[in-house]
Amino acid sequence: MIKVGIVGGTGYTGVELLRILATHPQVQLTAITSRKEDGLPVADMYPSLRGRVDIAFSSPDKAKLTECDVVFFATPHGVAMAQAPELLAAGVKVIDLAADFRLQDVKQFEKWYGMPHSCTHVLEEAVYGLPELNREAIKKARVIGNPGCYPTTMQLGYYPLLKAGVIDAGSLIADCKSGVSGAGRKAEIGLLFSETSDTFKAYGVSGHRHTPETVEQLQRMTSDKVGLLFTPHLVPMVRGMHSTLYGRLTKDISNEALQALFVDAYKDEPFVDVMPFGSHPETRSTRASNMLRLALHRPDNGNTVIVLVVQDNLVKGASGQAVQCMNLMFGLEEGTGLMHVPVMP
Amino acid sequence: MIKVGIVGGTGYTGVELLRILATHPQVQLTAITSRKEDGLPVADMYPSLRGRVDIAFSSPDKAKLTECDVVFFATPHGVAMAQAPELLAAGVKVIDLAADFRLQDVKQFEKWYGMPHSCTHVLEEAVYGLPELNREAIKKARVIGNPGCYPTTMQLGYYPLLKAGVIDAGSLIADCKSGVSGAGRKAEIGLLFSETSDTFKAYGVSGHRHTPETVEQLQRMTSDKVGLLFTPHLVPMVRGMHSTLYGRLTKDISNEALQALFVDAYKDEPFVDVMPFGSHPETRSTRASNMLRLALHRPDNGNTVIVLVVQDNLVKGASGQAVQCMNLMFGLEEGTGLMHVPVMP
Amino acid sequence: MIKVGIVGGTGYTGVELLRILATHPQVQLTAITSRKEDGLPVADMYPSLRGRVDIAFSSPDKAKLTECDVVFFATPHGVAMAQAPELLAAGVKVIDLAADFRLQDVKQFEKWYGMPHSCTHVLEEAVYGLPELNREAIKKARVIGNPGCYPTTMQLGYYPLLKAGVIDAGSLIADCKSGVSGAGRKAEIGLLFSETSDTFKAYGVSGHRHTPETVEQLQRMTSDKVGLLFTPHLVPMVRGMHSTLYGRLTKDISNEALQALFVDAYKDEPFVDVMPFGSHPETRSTRASNMLRLALHRPDNGNTVIVLVVQDNLVKGASGQAVQCMNLMFGLEEGTGLMHVPVMP
Amino acid sequence: MIKVGIVGGTGYTGVELLRILATHPQVQLTAITSRKEDGLPVADMYPSLRGRVDIAFSSPDKAKLTECDVVFFATPHGVAMAQAPELLAAGVKVIDLAADFRLQDVKQFEKWYGMPHSCTHVLEEAVYGLPELNREAIKKARVIGNPGCYPTTMQLGYYPLLKAGVIDAGSLIADCKSGVSGAGRKAEIGLLFSETSDTFKAYGVSGHRHTPETVEQLQRMTSDKVGLLFTPHLVPMVRGMHSTLYGRLTKDISNEALQALFVDAYKDEPFVDVMPFGSHPETRSTRASNMLRLALHRPDNGNTVIVLVVQDNLVKGASGQAVQCMNLMFGLEEGTGLMHVPVMP
Repeated sequence: MIKVGIVGGTGYTGVELLRILATHPQVQLTAITSRKEDGLPVADMYPSLRGRVDIAFSSPDKAKLTECDVVFFATPHGVAMAQAPELLAAGVKVIDLAADFRLQDVKQFEKWYGMPHSCTHVLEEAVYGLPELNREAIKKARVIGNPGCYPTTMQLGYYPLLKAGVIDAGSLIADCKSGVSGAGRKAEIGLLFSETSDTFKAYGVSGHRHTPETVEQLQRMTSDKVGLLFTPHLVPMVRGMHSTLYGRLTKDISNEALQALFVDAYKDEPFVDVMPFGSHPETRSTRASNMLRLALHRPDNGNTVIVLVVQDNLVKGASGQAVQCMNLMFGLEEGTGLMHVPVMP
Repeated sequence: MIKVGIVGGTGYTGVELLRILATHPQVQLTAITSRKEDGLPVADMYPSLRGRVDIAFSSPDKAKLTECDVVFFATPHGVAMAQAPELLAAGVKVIDLAADFRLQDVKQFEKWYGMPHSCTHVLEEAVYGLPELNREAIKKARVIGNPGCYPTTMQLGYYPLLKAGVIDAGSLIADCKSGVSGAGRKAEIGLLFSETSDTFKAYGVSGHRHTPETVEQLQRMTSDKVGLLFTPHLVPMVRGMHSTLYGRLTKDISNEALQALFVDAYKDEPFVDVMPFGSHPETRSTRASNMLRLALHRPDNGNTVIVLVVQDNLVKGASGQAVQCMNLMFGLEEGTGLMHVPVMP
Repeated sequence: MIKVGIVGGTGYTGVELLRILATHPQVQLTAITSRKEDGLPVADMYPSLRGRVDIAFSSPDKAKLTECDVVFFATPHGVAMAQAPELLAAGVKVIDLAADFRLQDVKQFEKWYGMPHSCTHVLEEAVYGLPELNREAIKKARVIGNPGCYPTTMQLGYYPLLKAGVIDAGSLIADCKSGVSGAGRKAEIGLLFSETSDTFKAYGVSGHRHTPETVEQLQRMTSDKVGLLFTPHLVPMVRGMHSTLYGRLTKDISNEALQALFVDAYKDEPFVDVMPFGSHPETRSTRASNMLRLALHRPDNGNTVIVLVVQDNLVKGASGQAVQCMNLMFGLEEGTGLMHVPVMP
Repeated sequence: MIKVGIVGGTGYTGVELLRILATHPQVQLTAITSRKEDGLPVADMYPSLRGRVDIAFSSPDKAKLTECDVVFFATPHGVAMAQAPELLAAGVKVIDLAADFRLQDVKQFEKWYGMPHSCTHVLEEAVYGLPELNREAIKKARVIGNPGCYPTTMQLGYYPLLKAGVIDAGSLIADCKSGVSGAGRKAEIGLLFSETSDTFKAYGVSGHRHTPETVEQLQRMTSDKVGLLFTPHLVPMVRGMHSTLYGRLTKDISNEALQALFVDAYKDEPFVDVMPFGSHPETRSTRASNMLRLALHRPDNGNTVIVLVVQDNLVKGASGQAVQCMNLMFGLEEGTGLMHVPVMP
């Protein structure tokens, strides 16, 4: 059994980790920290876990994290990099669900997250935790920077096209839509039901943290200079993410060949579903599961290809992907504990 | 492996059965019928099942239902009673999620469902499928009338009180609220998003089919004459049911003793969670799981006890409960394939 | 033109006052205070008001409230009673949307609101602002305690029954449901979209502030001792309130006679709509309007009458009612500026 | 007073017309037709109109439409063109909210709407009812083709850019999102609450009827060949539309100059609000009002300009715009009866 610790278990990615790990057959939940909720049984905060998770929150100083095999950080940015060195020294693997180990370009990190990176030597060995594109490195990693939710959809959506060199890498447009849980469990006016229900808006259009992360990864797929316009929007739903990706075709290619690029790229992937050409995937078809689904369109057989990508932002976009990485790091079958059938309706 | 057939798999209780059975370790999905969708792969209608359920709908005449061990009817009222005799004769067990085998009082059935009961000899042996109150009979049953969603909450909520004889059985008031999926997957104006979102209403206040079913069962718990006022309401949410049950105390009893009645009644139940006195259970704490949670209140220590009961109407209120019955009927551990952790948020 | 000031215009009752007053033909918006947002144009916080409301928030000390004819307090409890004396001395009328002037029983106020009442001499002259039951007093009032949202529905729903003495005043049960905006515009985890969407729960079942307010008013309608069980619930919708009121009939009375009690009581009321017996009013049929609608039921012609009452909690349940009071206080036609047609769908 | 008839008043654009016209000071509602609901008081179907609209539906043959001054068609495509000639001959003006008189290119009409155009001589004189771009023609028109909801946002969003010739007309990308009411009041599975709530998807990506309509109108703004990629999505909200419009800049232009193009174009428009550069308009800031709001972005000061446009699809996107046209056609002040303040929250 893998002894698992969670730092910061009170947010949505934290409770989603608990939901998944509670039925993971190879995991023993060992510690979960919260300074504020020290002593509170986890199930008191999240009644959905009553009878299923019986540990209590403990303050960070009391939690015996160094006795774990792996520690997940479901914390604000900056926490993991402060604690990772001590854990690594004790032989504990680290999976950070925040941004501390996502961006290899430290300047970009410091620009977008407004803090110095205190742990660049660990960053150097950190592996970007997107299994579909980085599986072998993840297997050997001690430290994982778990991808952001939006970047996961953009990378898996653009990858076959960029790798094959059939679209203009310099004029990518990603029009993305996320459920409200993506913003986290924070007491902010802007996230209230009465502010976000029955309405729709864009946000961060002039600049968003997920742009540099995505560009850094997309740039690994092509020798052309990547230019990405990323426009996030907020959808009045709890979970779910839908990315509408536009690419300008630079080669003469049939629709069948386009589709084949995706089928080939993902044919052995347990968590990427390439739907028939012209499908319209719905976010709910992935709800509460680790699946990501995508489908291609090419209006009027013109020179633009559209990739529609959906996932559950809390699962494939966060906690499920983190567990997928853990499975790889510990030599387990990749889908262990992750085979939930999506909840629909 | 239990060979399972489903008649009428295109509705919400049908797809929920599929979601549950797809990961049930002792089940082999053998046939699923739909006259209209003959030949269509199930996963084409419900993309959430892509890669997880690979059978196709077949028309009723082609489906080899008599080769199954058990057949679930997720159909409109009246279908199961027409087909049950043939299946039973072939040694196939029957679990009806509609009302055909719920009411032993045939007159009540005919009054509320507007059709003659064509199969009273089967009705006679049918067992009401509420495991918490009827477990031994279910184990031996060939035919199950799976309870209605509202009746499940009312019975489990009132049972310890009626059994102990501490409330007036003649003046029960059940103010109940259901998510929209409870009305089924029907093309009706009244169920449109634009008709049910951001609004709230009662319906069927002057009379609802679930009243006679509930009264018949409650009457088994007490020798006093049961009088029940049942008021259903429609909540703008997909899944979830919340019943607010009022009972007038007829005995001098402490709050501790009241709570003990419930704790004792359900202490060995895997799917009934008695929360601390004074709790406010949320429907989402049971979402996509087979759990039912309840909590007691007694305002001002007065002479009214309030029981708050929540469940997922599609799981404990329908398909999960049906699978729970199946497990009992086939000698499996009761929770087999039903241990989903609720999805929250 | 009536010069109007608003203290605390940043919450939902504040912005709703602005929406209504912006098109009120007899009102000149003169001052709106917010310590925190001093100098900010109102329309910058609420873009819905762009081009329609052109004043800015000013800090309380700068706002020339004493130059107004009437000041609305859309503030937390306790603010109005601190400022009312000075305003009254300057000849300014006061309408408080919080609880400071609702309860004549000071002990009850202090018990439920956790603060001493600093202004009992003003409280003595304060008039409870429910026009349907208190019209003449409101016309002459200098100070109004605007009713709570739930209490409005309970009073108008029970009034004809209690006045006629046909129900048992001692065993009233009010099962009430409110949209989330009723909880105000506060940065609280419990009010987040991801906490309140697609779920349903009761709250405050063991005791709620609106009980003593309602009981005090209901007691004025009958010489029997009022006993009220009030159970509030939270509905995943922004606006809207639905109260399901139960009363035990103590007299032999026909359904026609019951209906006539309501028709007679409200026949001249511009904002109370008595629907046909057996109707199911929806909250959205009152959305963004000052209408309250109600309908009677009597299941099985038994001894319980049910009154279904709906309103928009921010209009008839708060700001609309306050403007209705203002119209009466200043001798205007009661519906001036309040004739919005409900928004549906 | 203008005598107004409505053909097909049972859908959402029909009831929205009624909501608006009920308080229009110059309108007398004279007839409203529905074959199916002949004799039913309008307020029985839409209780929101109780006490405010007192006419009943009448079957088309009984309705005295030729006695009206103007008739609105809130019907499926094809109805208006069948009835328009008779009405026009009787001196009645016609405003069609469907597509019969939107497309001057009859071939495109027949291709996208799957029916022959039976009334091309009326089509020839029909005026496209977008007041901001077509005001003088509307004033003189006898027949109006009221714009589609999506096309309204795309035209008003691209107009200042195309007119000034600063973007590439051939590579427009419009990523648009609509509330569910945009699909109408039809008994379809795909529009059920349980199918559309808490989920998000694109639809019609490979081709949508609003593309040819929009292209035909955009082409009037520029001599360059227009190429438009239009991608509609369905948002789990009742009302509201958000279009995210991308344009590639072809000229060296400052952000201030871009903003000035919009401010100048719309400075006298009562229903177009140009928000500050870099704003994020929300759909709810226009809810239940005739306002359309837009804001510009230019990420990284690069060569793409983004226009965010919001409106209420049932008002500015349909019935409000139709009334705006009516006001112009009858010489009234353009905003008469249309000055509702948006409902927020």
